Amino acid sequence: MTISLSSLSLKFSTPYDPQLSIETLSSGTELKILDQTLLPWKEEWVELKNVEACIHAIKKLQVRGAPLIGVVASLSLAKSALDGATIGQLESEAQALYEARPTAVNLMICINRMKDVLSSLNSKTQATVLLLNEAVRHFQEDVTLCDQISNVGSDLIMSGDSILTHCNTGGLATAGCGTALGVIKKAFDQGKTIHVYVDETRPLLQGGRLTTWELEKYKIPYTLITDSMAGHLMSLGKINKILVGCDRIAKNGDFANKIGTYSLAVLAHHHRIPFYVVGPYTTMDVKCLTGGQIPIEQRDAKEVRGLNGAMGDWEWAPHQAPVYNPSFDVTPAKYVSGWILNCGLFKKSDFESGRVESCML
Amino acid sequence: MTISLSSLSLKFSTPYDPQLSIETLSSGTELKILDQTLLPWKEEWVELKNVEACIHAIKKLQVRGAPLIGVVASLSLAKSALDGATIGQLESEAQALYEARPTAVNLMICINRMKDVLSSLNSKTQATVLLLNEAVRHFQEDVTLCDQISNVGSDLIMSGDSILTHCNTGGLATAGCGTALGVIKKAFDQGKTIHVYVDETRPLLQGGRLTTWELEKYKIPYTLITDSMAGHLMSLGKINKILVGCDRIAKNGDFANKIGTYSLAVLAHHHRIPFYVVGPYTTMDVKCLTGGQIPIEQRDAKEVRGLNGAMGDWEWAPHQAPVYNPSFDVTPAKYVSGWILNCGLFKKSDFESGRVESCML
Repeated sequence: MTISLSSLSLKFSTPYDPQLSIETLSSGTELKILDQTLLPWKEEWVELKNVEACIHAIKKLQVRGAPLIGVVASLSLAKSALDGATIGQLESEAQALYEARPTAVNLMICINRMKDVLSSLNSKTQATVLLLNEAVRHFQEDVTLCDQISNVGSDLIMSGDSILTHCNTGGLATAGCGTALGVIKKAFDQGKTIHVYVDETRPLLQGGRLTTWELEKYKIPYTLITDSMAGHLMSLGKINKILVGCDRIAKNGDFANKIGTYSLAVLAHHHRIPFYVVGPYTTMDVKCLTGGQIPIEQRDAKEVRGLNGAMGDWEWAPHQAPVYNPSFDVTPAKYVSGWILNCGLFKKSDFESGRVESCML
Repeated sequence: MTISLSSLSLKFSTPYDPQLSIETLSSGTELKILDQTLLPWKEEWVELKNVEACIHAIKKLQVRGAPLIGVVASLSLAKSALDGATIGQLESEAQALYEARPTAVNLMICINRMKDVLSSLNSKTQATVLLLNEAVRHFQEDVTLCDQISNVGSDLIMSGDSILTHCNTGGLATAGCGTALGVIKKAFDQGKTIHVYVDETRPLLQGGRLTTWELEKYKIPYTLITDSMAGHLMSLGKINKILVGCDRIAKNGDFANKIGTYSLAVLAHHHRIPFYVVGPYTTMDVKCLTGGQIPIEQRDAKEVRGLNGAMGDWEWAPHQAPVYNPSFDVTPAKYVSGWILNCGLFKKSDFESGRVESCML
């Protein structure tokens, strides 16, 4: 059988098997992802034959989205056990997966849980069963978390809302319906009349390529803009809510998300537009006391010098143009109107009091 | 002979003829522009054989920059007279040039001056002489205005400054050394140690393609960023001045400039970073009382759905993705630290008192 990651596969191509469990898996199991670098032109599934291929796909952003890369990493490690890796191999593969992307904490949480399973083993046979069980649990938990998040968040969306979003936080970023985009989809499915403004999200254009693709699938009305137009639209009164995802939330509520989020938060604050962060509890990292402690991944200069993807490598800047290319920025809690988590809507005071941490239990 | 527009031609390819005047012009005169849609890959000069070709080049942004399109439009009309157009033809060509782009006021000012010449004529022979004289004056005036602006502005730049700029406002945007980028170049030429952060300026990438190209020519140290990174850099304390150009300044100091300028101004205000607008007096339009009266040009959706230019038409968003694509936005005067004009540095109070209008005499 095939484990197809991304909730979109469940809705649009592969029939979803809610009975997904170790009993249905064999050593011939294929782990496939929808190659997100090829969207929206081509819907192509790529097989991740081993952990090395999985790490490559994560680094190349063929599979992306903080929640989804945690799930795919766990499944890849479980498949490695299924395919006969030794405990020693699994331990070093777990470490390599852990380090595949430095900012998103979900990946580390998932792999830490897999490491806990590994360190409690008595036999190789047990490894396969327990790792598969654990990985499938990560998949199913993420689906549930997305459902819970969309229930919490959709209560905040009113008919007539015009919502700005950044990057891609939908079915392509999670095993479920998504985080910020999952909330939007749920509100739309509830019959609310909404309009979505989509930041294209340079340099990798996750908004222009992926969020637009999802919104077309869902038939939700939207308008695509360049990142530089968001402030202008706010000044015109065209946006009345902003919803973004998150890659890591610090103990004090500061959070890391796709580069450009910080600017949106400051602009929203200035224009008194409610600005919400949306994510599962697995995005919280109480060991990071403030946003300043979140490591920010720097990516390849060529992403900013041009365009990298399915259309090849296009460069429009001078060949050696010096570039600064942080994948994420950090937004202080003071700019956030509310944190939409799977366990409820939280305010800044909930981070100050520690009440939000009940979400992690 | 050839009239080569853009100061860069003067510096890097065609030798500059400071004696440029009607005596050196004949009916075989060629009007050439450096095709800015092909930069930085190819430096190709395109001949503008007639006014129609000139309007096409303006609309296609082969020639761009508010001051430069005014100059090229005047020269194109003068060349039409040289090539034998009737007064009636010249009048309708002047009107067509006037309407080529709606936001930049320099174009309208230049063409209005050409229209004044046309309406004062006694004979066809006189038309050619007077229109050529007037157009060459526009060219030379712009060179002088740029020099004056760079003298005023460079006094504000200190060694050690880290300056953010947006779009392209250099030799490619004017007949002279530029406006905002002209100030930066002058400060560098004075021996000041500076670093320039260049917004790529989606959708047409004038920063990524043109400003980087100019900075490489001048050997000024720079870093290219996506538009979404500017706020993050401000939060890190990496930027201590922002200089932008302008396409129209209203009587109260509000101004229109390339889309994304408004966001930068609000972010600068929030981070207490000095934010300067740079331009010649020809950019002022006292008939526009506030920025709200400045018409904003909407451009083709395909510019946002992908990339249009010398590499062909690339689309990464869904084919029919609905798009909002204003070429400019309006920044209220309250966010501006100073207006660097050819006749001096002005403050908001100078707009309130009308003192700034002495610049237009």
